[in-house]
Amino acid sequence: MEHDITLSLDQAQALSRHILHNAGFGPGHVEAITRSVVAAQRDECHSHGLYRLLKIVETAKMGGLDPQAVPEVIDHAPGIVRIDARYGSSLLAFEQGLAPLREKAERHGIAVLAINHCFHFSALWSEVEALSGMGLAGLAMNPTHAFVAPAGGVRSLLGTNPLAFSWPRPGGDPYTFDFATSVVARGEIELHRRAGKSIPDNWALDDQGQPTTDPTAALEGAMLPFGGHKGSALSTMIELLAGPLIGDALSHETQAANEEGTGRPCHGELVIALSPRVFLGEQHEAGISHAEKLFEEMLGQGARLPSQRRFEARVRSLASGVSIPAALYRDLMALAGEDPVGEKEDAP
Amino acid sequence: MEHDITLSLDQAQALSRHILHNAGFGPGHVEAITRSVVAAQRDECHSHGLYRLLKIVETAKMGGLDPQAVPEVIDHAPGIVRIDARYGSSLLAFEQGLAPLREKAERHGIAVLAINHCFHFSALWSEVEALSGMGLAGLAMNPTHAFVAPAGGVRSLLGTNPLAFSWPRPGGDPYTFDFATSVVARGEIELHRRAGKSIPDNWALDDQGQPTTDPTAALEGAMLPFGGHKGSALSTMIELLAGPLIGDALSHETQAANEEGTGRPCHGELVIALSPRVFLGEQHEAGISHAEKLFEEMLGQGARLPSQRRFEARVRSLASGVSIPAALYRDLMALAGEDPVGEKEDAP
Repeated sequence: MEHDITLSLDQAQALSRHILHNAGFGPGHVEAITRSVVAAQRDECHSHGLYRLLKIVETAKMGGLDPQAVPEVIDHAPGIVRIDARYGSSLLAFEQGLAPLREKAERHGIAVLAINHCFHFSALWSEVEALSGMGLAGLAMNPTHAFVAPAGGVRSLLGTNPLAFSWPRPGGDPYTFDFATSVVARGEIELHRRAGKSIPDNWALDDQGQPTTDPTAALEGAMLPFGGHKGSALSTMIELLAGPLIGDALSHETQAANEEGTGRPCHGELVIALSPRVFLGEQHEAGISHAEKLFEEMLGQGARLPSQRRFEARVRSLASGVSIPAALYRDLMALAGEDPVGEKEDAP
Repeated sequence: MEHDITLSLDQAQALSRHILHNAGFGPGHVEAITRSVVAAQRDECHSHGLYRLLKIVETAKMGGLDPQAVPEVIDHAPGIVRIDARYGSSLLAFEQGLAPLREKAERHGIAVLAINHCFHFSALWSEVEALSGMGLAGLAMNPTHAFVAPAGGVRSLLGTNPLAFSWPRPGGDPYTFDFATSVVARGEIELHRRAGKSIPDNWALDDQGQPTTDPTAALEGAMLPFGGHKGSALSTMIELLAGPLIGDALSHETQAANEEGTGRPCHGELVIALSPRVFLGEQHEAGISHAEKLFEEMLGQGARLPSQRRFEARVRSLASGVSIPAALYRDLMALAGEDPVGEKEDAP
């Protein structure tokens, strides 16, 4: 068995930059995507980490994603920043929208960032944590790709539509959650298929709309929303608010684009920022302290906060770097140029 | 067996007005509460219908709720309307906040109504439907009373924290959901106890923090959130946004007030309004039509939309009035004055 390869965070960044530059991404996209995949790798979210670069480069090669797209920032309304990502990655668009979103939220108490026409291949937690890092509460959502049947339905229609939220905590990691509105991630079903294991009968339907325990049948059928009709309703809300409300696609409409060979889904994203400073005024500190009571009560009865595992991984990675499988490292190196991590002697 | 009593909607309104007036509620509260309970009865949401009047009157008699409270409307920030309900019912506060909330949402694209210090005994769907009736998308949430353990926890901490959403549909009923973030409503467990039936083992924990199928043990223990850690996270977000963010109580803090005999929980509520007209501008009609495609696809594969049953009940009630058990009718009549429904000859 091969050993994993350990990279410092600087090396991981350098590797990502070389790969993206080689694939034709403009400097702004190189930096925004690198920040995202290295942050995910640092937090041991492997599927959104360095591995994701393989998919991103593949998507760019397929021609749907514009690696040089210049996002257009539009001051759409007093409470709305709109960004036309112009068929580029969502990440640079988000970064460019962050300052005006913050400014509007701090002036009005609440504001929205609506991103249109973006390719979205990142986790949302890093975006809502950018907001909580500024002392704002952030809520983000987007449609994806139609893999999920609505409750009571028989066919894929909804995306795995993630919902993420972050709340600022003084002197510590924020309270953050980021979950798919499907019962499990699609990758989980793929892992069961590879391992030859059956899946629980409440994860998915086969292509006849019947519950199945066969992961292959599930991948050809439809996944189910989490929490039955409640999760299905929540996912529908995400479709509406991050789709038609902002003049962008529903999850089942990205499918066609995908089948035409343009790669990952292209759609919109909605981010809401709320300012505790504006809501609470002079009571700001008291309100933030008040929220801490809830977390103390949770931890005091043995419950974990969401993202706790991720924050623990972050501490480890900041101290010791990140580890990736040797095979992934070789695939990444094949996409990079000469000596991309600057430490050839350590490479296998 | 006794027959149910049928009342026209006018009779139901008259009965509600008499009861609330007799219990000392000011005219504004009488009308706001009557609109809410009659709308719920009309939609066959029995627990929030005329039955609820018994609880409301009892709460007012206990002295925590001020039946004459005059809500204070505060123009808190460009995007925030704040209402201090002054320990009265949330319903009049909501009605008074609706026009300024609409005005702000139509000007900025998004706005918030924050209600403080209210007694909350109504369903949220009628409030988000007030917004969708004006062409806005509405999202409402509130903490309740600590009956639910966080995922991985062992004791009650979170409320059953409802989340409601409504989206305007042209020429028809809106898309609306309104669900508790507990697996089931507390009343569902009470019904099992009365019927001597066991409950599924994923509904609740006993007072030792262990899963239980005994409804009595469940009522003494803690209910579970829907959808495991995802529902728990969503419920936590509701605590934060409709609690500390607006300077109001967490669900576990309302418990003490309740134990002091002030009746139903007193806390805050948060309502977010988004304006499709502002988001979409000239594309407004196209965006609303676009959303219809999603509903068509759902219905086309046999899925039901949430609230469909309620809208069907509404049609029946508008045509034929509402029916309530004879025992409930007698209890209500005992709280009302002389001939409250104006049809003494039909009364039993």
